[in-house]
Amino acid sequence: MTVKNPFTGVNPLILVVIVGFASVFLSDCSHSPVSQNNENKPQNIILLIGDGMGPAHIKAYRKFVDKPETPEEEKLVLDPYLVGSLSTEPSDSGISIADSAASATTFATGTRTINGALSVDSAGRSLPTVLEKAKVLGLSTGLVATSEIVHATPAAFASHHLDRDQMNDIADQYFDNQHDGLPMVDVMLGGGLEYFARDDRDLLAEFSGKGYSLVSNRSEMLAANNDKLLGLFAEEGLPKMWDRKPSTPSLGDMAKTAIQKLSKNPRGFFLVIEASQIDWAAHDNDIVGVISEMQDFETAIKTVMDFATEDGNTLVIATADHETGGLSIGSKASGEDFYYWDIGVIKTFKYTPAKMTDDAQASGDLIAAFQKATSLELTENEKEKLLKVDLEDWEQTRRAVSEVINKRSFTGWTTYGHTGVDVNLYAFGPGSEAFRGHWDNTRVGQLIFELLDQ
Amino acid sequence: MTVKNPFTGVNPLILVVIVGFASVFLSDCSHSPVSQNNENKPQNIILLIGDGMGPAHIKAYRKFVDKPETPEEEKLVLDPYLVGSLSTEPSDSGISIADSAASATTFATGTRTINGALSVDSAGRSLPTVLEKAKVLGLSTGLVATSEIVHATPAAFASHHLDRDQMNDIADQYFDNQHDGLPMVDVMLGGGLEYFARDDRDLLAEFSGKGYSLVSNRSEMLAANNDKLLGLFAEEGLPKMWDRKPSTPSLGDMAKTAIQKLSKNPRGFFLVIEASQIDWAAHDNDIVGVISEMQDFETAIKTVMDFATEDGNTLVIATADHETGGLSIGSKASGEDFYYWDIGVIKTFKYTPAKMTDDAQASGDLIAAFQKATSLELTENEKEKLLKVDLEDWEQTRRAVSEVINKRSFTGWTTYGHTGVDVNLYAFGPGSEAFRGHWDNTRVGQLIFELLDQ
Repeated sequence: MTVKNPFTGVNPLILVVIVGFASVFLSDCSHSPVSQNNENKPQNIILLIGDGMGPAHIKAYRKFVDKPETPEEEKLVLDPYLVGSLSTEPSDSGISIADSAASATTFATGTRTINGALSVDSAGRSLPTVLEKAKVLGLSTGLVATSEIVHATPAAFASHHLDRDQMNDIADQYFDNQHDGLPMVDVMLGGGLEYFARDDRDLLAEFSGKGYSLVSNRSEMLAANNDKLLGLFAEEGLPKMWDRKPSTPSLGDMAKTAIQKLSKNPRGFFLVIEASQIDWAAHDNDIVGVISEMQDFETAIKTVMDFATEDGNTLVIATADHETGGLSIGSKASGEDFYYWDIGVIKTFKYTPAKMTDDAQASGDLIAAFQKATSLELTENEKEKLLKVDLEDWEQTRRAVSEVINKRSFTGWTTYGHTGVDVNLYAFGPGSEAFRGHWDNTRVGQLIFELLDQ
Repeated sequence: MTVKNPFTGVNPLILVVIVGFASVFLSDCSHSPVSQNNENKPQNIILLIGDGMGPAHIKAYRKFVDKPETPEEEKLVLDPYLVGSLSTEPSDSGISIADSAASATTFATGTRTINGALSVDSAGRSLPTVLEKAKVLGLSTGLVATSEIVHATPAAFASHHLDRDQMNDIADQYFDNQHDGLPMVDVMLGGGLEYFARDDRDLLAEFSGKGYSLVSNRSEMLAANNDKLLGLFAEEGLPKMWDRKPSTPSLGDMAKTAIQKLSKNPRGFFLVIEASQIDWAAHDNDIVGVISEMQDFETAIKTVMDFATEDGNTLVIATADHETGGLSIGSKASGEDFYYWDIGVIKTFKYTPAKMTDDAQASGDLIAAFQKATSLELTENEKEKLLKVDLEDWEQTRRAVSEVINKRSFTGWTTYGHTGVDVNLYAFGPGSEAFRGHWDNTRVGQLIFELLDQ
């Protein structure tokens, strides 16, 4: 990876050191969200999206953090701020389950569109986004994701396209869609380097020319003393959290960096943070991968809630675009009357089936690769099944590994695609009251527009 | 069925005609629950329980009531009052998924217990219930269900037993557990006649002797001019709503009758209403049955919300004891990229697979019985599968019918048992603020005790 001089074109006088967050407002919000400040318009809005995160993904992760020795289940950071749920349908007739593009468009624009479309209507006409509105109003803006930063969910906030798969076009738009001669997004952190460093166009050089620092690993990101930042930490998506090397930042690291940069703007900021690969793991029916990515999401949620609680002027909204996998906490494998889901099985894994599959392809020994990742002993029957796998077929190999884990842990799935169940909606801070209840997901974009307009 | 004189022992002078509900408080609660009266202790508490009703069951029913011709999804009555969710674990070590007895015990007592146990701890020691507390405080009390009225969920409020299956014992306790010389529950409406009219004990005569009216069909129930009422409308559970004859009341009919009786008490009332057979249908992986029973539940919810909105002094809590079936709105049958769940298939059915199975056993022709219930045309492949079914085996027959419907509608299930996903929590009226957020289900019982104690 070629990384350009991070300081090109930036006046060193504007570089400041972050010494901490203002303690403007610190309420006793230990559990009840009732004590939030709801009087004022928020200065900052942070939208957290768990891609594919249905109610069961949240429950699964809560069982992972639960301490069996305590009588009550330990709570997740967002649990006290659950305020409702969202329907996620796209506008297509005859299609009742959303993809990430259509659903992210509702958050970004307040309008429903067809699957595959990014902030355009079904005829391809651009719909203004809340991020663009925030930028025009003088706020700073950011996108953070563990997928390619030009993947559907972040892309809906800063590009317009009928086809989410045209990620080169989307990367071009990230640079070409400008306000006052500068790109719309001040901080972009995620994967997708290959869409920026291309033969046909060197977007890295172009962003650098507009004063962006370019970083490609965690330490570079933490050292960057510039408020305009493009961090691309993988050619495509980042490795899953449990599979990462220390040079790859967590979602929490990226969230913290983004907030540090963006919160310098006295006018406020708008930031989207996506845990992109909850969805990817669920597409693979990979419960270990789901827990890895939920844990990555929780690092970002903690960072965001620490900031928002201290700051007192930040609205935090957290939700999902749709459910993936038809995940359930229990399966036929557990029998009709044996009511058990075994998080203990999942806790034995050091990394996810994706890395096990890589290891198996490298060594030619799937059973050894599996046993290296876990203290779980494979049964003869399980070994037999794994021996039948064609290691050349990466997808088949990973699925076979996931199937063993699903059966052992009694994890149920109904599809490799998305499902239509409502997703949870969390809100905290000024403006959060308006999110209470069940809504169409368009309400998120509509309310953000309203709050920006106030 | 032998039904005793409904007026035995009742002073005709206390019979009054209900002319309507007091319009003490009518807020503009068209969507936001924020405008509720939260200042005061509620006079009345109504707890609505959808047995086995997970997030996907609610979504499925919302798709059923949705009008495809309108751009936005139509809302359910409770949608504006979604305030959070509940964890549902029992206290058993090594068992992570609740049964109805353990979960209902948390609502009834505020304490977790083991699966199978009704308002006793794991050693069998009785735990006081909110219904008993309400009765001692002078409130009127009621239990309404579509299962046997001595089935686990209602039973947890008015009996104490280590074994939920001992339904004769539970029926005995309904009579024997008394306050001031009268049974604890003033109005009981549901199924389960066989547990009251027994060779070893005639509980019907005993209740009648204590001044209860006994009714066995809808018109008798509506005509009963007595505030103490025992209505048993089937030997075991009621038929599913879509399979009922007009002589069997809906859950809404029973809810309305119960409220009419109980609301005469100026001290207030405590009422539990359970849509019992959402769970039963889900155990059968029967999506048509789930929709039937969700619709029955909605009739009760409408009745309750009409009363509570007018009354202004009623706290309504609605939730579920656990999820059943691992239901999802989408399945592998729809393919990995074809995002569709077809409620249209379900809408073609006039009644549920239970009645189709009865019809097939009577006629000997399952295909004719299936085609009589729906405008859906069976394919040759589907017919072949149905022809292989052993009609003598009622369970096998019903499952075969349900499998055809699941595949056609792309409905996914992961188990014939329960799962551990969080269940939705709705609250409306005075006291409702305290329910906001995610909680262990023990909070429901604990808060009801606190509200009664105020």
